[in-house]
Amino acid sequence: MSDQEKELQVLRDQIDRIDQQLQTLLNQRAACAQQVAEVKQKYQGARDAVFYRPEREAQVLRRVMERNTGPLPERDVARLFREVMSVCLALEQPMRIAFLGPEGTFTQQAAVKHFGLSAITAPLGSLDEVFREVEAGTAHYGVVPIENTSEGMVNHTLHLFSRFQISIVGEVELNIHHHLLVRPNIDRNAVTRIYATQSALAQCRRWLDAHYPSVERVAVATNADAAREASIESDLGLAAAIGSELAIELYPLQVAVRNIEDQAESSSRFLILGRQEVGPSGHDKTSILVCAHDKPGALYDLLAPFRQRGISLTRIETRTLSGPWNSVFYIDFEGHVSDAPVQALFKELESESLELKLLGSYPQAVL
Amino acid sequence: MSDQEKELQVLRDQIDRIDQQLQTLLNQRAACAQQVAEVKQKYQGARDAVFYRPEREAQVLRRVMERNTGPLPERDVARLFREVMSVCLALEQPMRIAFLGPEGTFTQQAAVKHFGLSAITAPLGSLDEVFREVEAGTAHYGVVPIENTSEGMVNHTLHLFSRFQISIVGEVELNIHHHLLVRPNIDRNAVTRIYATQSALAQCRRWLDAHYPSVERVAVATNADAAREASIESDLGLAAAIGSELAIELYPLQVAVRNIEDQAESSSRFLILGRQEVGPSGHDKTSILVCAHDKPGALYDLLAPFRQRGISLTRIETRTLSGPWNSVFYIDFEGHVSDAPVQALFKELESESLELKLLGSYPQAVL
Repeated sequence: MSDQEKELQVLRDQIDRIDQQLQTLLNQRAACAQQVAEVKQKYQGARDAVFYRPEREAQVLRRVMERNTGPLPERDVARLFREVMSVCLALEQPMRIAFLGPEGTFTQQAAVKHFGLSAITAPLGSLDEVFREVEAGTAHYGVVPIENTSEGMVNHTLHLFSRFQISIVGEVELNIHHHLLVRPNIDRNAVTRIYATQSALAQCRRWLDAHYPSVERVAVATNADAAREASIESDLGLAAAIGSELAIELYPLQVAVRNIEDQAESSSRFLILGRQEVGPSGHDKTSILVCAHDKPGALYDLLAPFRQRGISLTRIETRTLSGPWNSVFYIDFEGHVSDAPVQALFKELESESLELKLLGSYPQAVL
Repeated sequence: MSDQEKELQVLRDQIDRIDQQLQTLLNQRAACAQQVAEVKQKYQGARDAVFYRPEREAQVLRRVMERNTGPLPERDVARLFREVMSVCLALEQPMRIAFLGPEGTFTQQAAVKHFGLSAITAPLGSLDEVFREVEAGTAHYGVVPIENTSEGMVNHTLHLFSRFQISIVGEVELNIHHHLLVRPNIDRNAVTRIYATQSALAQCRRWLDAHYPSVERVAVATNADAAREASIESDLGLAAAIGSELAIELYPLQVAVRNIEDQAESSSRFLILGRQEVGPSGHDKTSILVCAHDKPGALYDLLAPFRQRGISLTRIETRTLSGPWNSVFYIDFEGHVSDAPVQALFKELESESLELKLLGSYPQAVL
């Protein structure tokens, strides 16, 4: 045995011992998860027992990240724990997660990021279908994008929240930067067509207006389509694509200009839809729909109670919807509906608004 | 606190303690993996050090499955360990895995199954590109399907093995059954079109000839396309799709007839391509290309040495290739090129054949 082999053998024996302990603990954890399920079935009934608890999972992941000392990066360890919880949960109840398809999109990435690989992800053709399947219980949970305001998606999603009995049980964030991508050795100033999704075109509109005012913008269905179009030679002229880090890895393209999105720190956000009320995890968000009185200063009156109680608004969207609610505000704020200040806030909002709908309180995205 | 909450609290405290131990062990394991990398760099040089060892990984996974006592199913535990190894490896060297795209195909599934989520999977447009990137080192490893004989893929792959300096460093198996899928409430006898991939059509040809001799078969690019076509109403008549378990989960279709593939136990096999020689893992396979003398009984003469030495053939394919090798046999057998009987076999084969090329010895698929 060579010196190298001897040194490696010592380390490998050590790894083997660690692996044995890991395996014992993983099975002990699974056994505990089974007992948790039994307790729930005993008290809640076999049919009504809720096995997946987003607040509990968020707490576990936060603790994992806080106490991590390395060398594994805290995000990697948390991802492993996500998989461990996913496997333990699947032992009790294999989960079917509906998402806005097609496969291979960021929404599927978000679903896998949140539920782990042991969940079955089901791409559906429309937002309506995702809501319908979750409401009907044919899917346990749903995942929909919420940040693509450019595509009118929020508009439609908000409309669906008023049509379906669905609550938000979680959120997922994916960091997505947009880059201008071209084939190697192509002069980016000679580009005559830019391929991108509707959403990417919208998120980079100002940059494109400034740098490529007269270049044709071609909307395609997916980021992969955009990268593919730009990666092949064509009679139509020199093409570029707007794409993510992912696209650089996947296609023979290189980055001509980095981070061309109009807003820095562009992270895409996705909502987890479910049918349950989620308890407080310690770092929560609440989403509501509010229809204000049709009077001057209505929005100001609506927001004043937040400031008074020191409740942090994280997002506010104004939408005009057809149907019963003509003008509606979608509001995200920090806190849980069970917090005393939030309960007081709700009382006030109810008197200030025509209608108030709680969409859900849920843990803030951990990873 | 309710009785339920009390009982759950006890179990959750237990889970928290287990999680802390798990985390400590995971980081200890990562630290050991770092030391392994340092030893390798010391002896092999920073540039030439090989971090990924398929034989070692196969041994770890086999041990995990053998010693597993549950309640976690052995495949789930092994999958977790795959992820643990994937994360530890990424700490040293993030791996780029080229595969025959597009994304969302079974080949990508195979790549993720084999390398874990921490690897970067890069879909390429052709088999040639996968071979080229692996040979050039721009991808660390490649994944290509090898079982879709119907599509002439093996033919082409074999041809590429003679053109590129590449070796097989592993194999992956995915269980894939084909079902006839229709929308709910549709009479399967009224079907007028069947959508499927070329490969699925080929794998179910006899069944289709027997049951749907005069129904139009429409080849589409992916299984997802087939399921989608069959799931929507169309003026073209009632459609069915051939699809997998996956498609049933993903589309509003139901199984009209299960397992219509002509060969039972259809599992798709994929090869891992690399540039390294893989040491013995204890349960290995070897793949060779042999060009036999052009004489009567040549194939028999070629196979006789296998029988004499009790070496198990697992697969043999005969191909006629253009180029230097006119008729060539692709042979898989059990054993490793470092085993004494295999070395003796090679001596004999060399004298019995015009040319003999070792494609690789590698661990048999574990999961």
